[in-house]
Amino acid sequence: MARKNAFYAQSGGVSAVINASACGVLQTARRHSEEIGKVYAGRNGIIGALTEDLIDTSVESEAAIAALKHTPGAAFGSCRYKLTSIDEHRAQYERLMEVFHAHDIGFFFYNGGGDSQDTAQKVSQMSAGMAYPIVCVGIPKTVDNDLPVTDCSPGFGSVAKYLATSIREAAFDLASMSRTSTKVFALEVMGRHAGWMTAACGLAAEQEGGAPHALLPPEVAFNEGRFLAKVEEAVERYGHCVIAVSEGLKGPDGGFLSASGSRDAFGHAQLGGVAPVITNMISAKLRYKCHWAVADYLQRSARHIASATDVEQAYAVGRAAVEFAIAGRRAVMPAIRRLSDEPYRWDIIEAPLSEVANQEKLLPPDFISADGFGITEAARRYLAPLIVGEAYPPFKNGLPDYVKLQNVGAPKKLTREFAV
Amino acid sequence: MARKNAFYAQSGGVSAVINASACGVLQTARRHSEEIGKVYAGRNGIIGALTEDLIDTSVESEAAIAALKHTPGAAFGSCRYKLTSIDEHRAQYERLMEVFHAHDIGFFFYNGGGDSQDTAQKVSQMSAGMAYPIVCVGIPKTVDNDLPVTDCSPGFGSVAKYLATSIREAAFDLASMSRTSTKVFALEVMGRHAGWMTAACGLAAEQEGGAPHALLPPEVAFNEGRFLAKVEEAVERYGHCVIAVSEGLKGPDGGFLSASGSRDAFGHAQLGGVAPVITNMISAKLRYKCHWAVADYLQRSARHIASATDVEQAYAVGRAAVEFAIAGRRAVMPAIRRLSDEPYRWDIIEAPLSEVANQEKLLPPDFISADGFGITEAARRYLAPLIVGEAYPPFKNGLPDYVKLQNVGAPKKLTREFAV
Repeated sequence: MARKNAFYAQSGGVSAVINASACGVLQTARRHSEEIGKVYAGRNGIIGALTEDLIDTSVESEAAIAALKHTPGAAFGSCRYKLTSIDEHRAQYERLMEVFHAHDIGFFFYNGGGDSQDTAQKVSQMSAGMAYPIVCVGIPKTVDNDLPVTDCSPGFGSVAKYLATSIREAAFDLASMSRTSTKVFALEVMGRHAGWMTAACGLAAEQEGGAPHALLPPEVAFNEGRFLAKVEEAVERYGHCVIAVSEGLKGPDGGFLSASGSRDAFGHAQLGGVAPVITNMISAKLRYKCHWAVADYLQRSARHIASATDVEQAYAVGRAAVEFAIAGRRAVMPAIRRLSDEPYRWDIIEAPLSEVANQEKLLPPDFISADGFGITEAARRYLAPLIVGEAYPPFKNGLPDYVKLQNVGAPKKLTREFAV
Repeated sequence: MARKNAFYAQSGGVSAVINASACGVLQTARRHSEEIGKVYAGRNGIIGALTEDLIDTSVESEAAIAALKHTPGAAFGSCRYKLTSIDEHRAQYERLMEVFHAHDIGFFFYNGGGDSQDTAQKVSQMSAGMAYPIVCVGIPKTVDNDLPVTDCSPGFGSVAKYLATSIREAAFDLASMSRTSTKVFALEVMGRHAGWMTAACGLAAEQEGGAPHALLPPEVAFNEGRFLAKVEEAVERYGHCVIAVSEGLKGPDGGFLSASGSRDAFGHAQLGGVAPVITNMISAKLRYKCHWAVADYLQRSARHIASATDVEQAYAVGRAAVEFAIAGRRAVMPAIRRLSDEPYRWDIIEAPLSEVANQEKLLPPDFISADGFGITEAARRYLAPLIVGEAYPPFKNGLPDYVKLQNVGAPKKLTREFAV
């Protein structure tokens, strides 16, 4: 096999560890310089490929590449930009082939969630159809943990650790004050359709009655009467009530409870603000003083409290992607397979992109307690190992010392511009 | 001097390190068992004294007391309950004397902010007037950093570190996505009147143009036109804009911009929700997609990312309080004196309670940049050393391992109940 260059892009909402996957890709590619020449990264994801805005990662030092492992965000920029069917977007797929050909790119690594795995699969099909051989490998990433096949998605374990830590800490604060002041605290967490992040908050409870007292995942339709009864019961029994609520919480009619009504570039409703909605409800009906927090980007960028397990898995899928590609495996994604819960053991297997694209893995019913407000032992067994281990970044002057790459553009080879 | 028991109480909103002060008090008192007998803690602050609900700290193990140093919240409970003038609340002050007398308490340690120092001073006056000798010593604590005399207030350095870390991390996330998605991120921080926490967010910026791009402290009246121009400029120059906004932000008319209108037990307006107000303004006027977060209790309970400097100072003021009391110093508070910025050196001095009670130290004008949206070099020199050093708590199963004390009540000696 002749040596080819590679293209790597980060896609969709970022995480605390997507750069650890980038680190895995780049370090592994550098170790395989017989098979892989330069690794170009797309500036702002796939848009960088479409506009021929390629970042030459070869100019980055070994130290800078190593520092990606402890740096949150997407070092090369990400985007929300979905290529759907080849029929509809043929010009875009052709443009990708043109850019890849011009830069002698034979490997395509796409690091993202379900939409991205779909794109990777389509690029693979397109390249096969055009007889231009590109080895396409997806790399899993999503804080939502909603990718199928893989036991968990890199990015999730760190959000889970951040959320469970934060809600445990806030519960200590609330318990201190509840005699005369605030009795209810609600933390709003991400997760539009899947309640994995909401469920992870449940890990904060050490025993029956420990905080959080009520979880509101999007899989369970909100019932005001039952919810208020649950809150009142917790305040009466424990003196206070801690709640974790998903931004995607829906009412019995299927509509979002969230106050915000705007939409993002994909036409998905932009959520945020359900915590004040439910705490206003509690204040009005139960007359408890409430506080609420919305973690938003803080949760998915909190590299300072990342899970060591998650960092290791994120790196491993990046490394495996390159190894799969070199082995000529096409249209696959490295997936995490759980071998045992305790001790926690896992390895990396190969998942066909066709099985992971465009599917959302929701919280299974047996992970949700009978009353709908908690997690079961099965959920706890699944979630617990994912947050284990601390992987602190280096600090400088009291703050995490994150790397900013040079992100030098590779010279363009095409004369035609392409508008996105 | 005959051996006397001591009373210790935690007051007002809690912090990540108020228990480190408690640790300093208890460990130091145990080392001075010739002068101090038992240390009783008020269950839920001063309410525990009024209702004779005293916690016997002598039953707690050395290990449990040591673990207070890394545990957030108020281990004995806190309260929002202010005793004002002796004339108005004479019965309450008399009740305190009665309880203290019954339990042979000769030392009163009150750990809190300005209101608490005021109470400590009044208890001291009352005890002098009643010829019942109680040595009253205040211990500074407030995330607001608004106590006078002391160079900084224990609790603040840890919030400052949490906020600067969080905003730096969120800025990495935002910068990754801003090409096609969110262009503005606003983090709402605490600080009703004083902008210290808002200013601390400015530490996240490493160089000119770094995030955050706009700080909105409560000391600077909000001007919509100038603010929107600042946001637009940042988005045009850097591609995105990161904002830190105080919950106490006020408009030109002096009214809070915040959406919430309820009041707490002290009659203070309960704030929260100014971040959505300003981001809605930006979306409407500038058409940028925005995200926002409200940190609320997460910021002041985030022991996992506490400042080592802050933990050390919190412990030191607790220890010094006991040492002052044993030396017979009355109506004083240990204060932190800065000896130099770099290298940062400090010691503990004695401040009369009369000088610290009921005064709020706001952000000085020379800490706010000329355009009102940033911090000056003087602010940076002041703030920088306060966040230095990491003091991670121990972790167990992936989560911080915080202590819950037994909090065993001491037998009551009085027959009369006292309603609060």
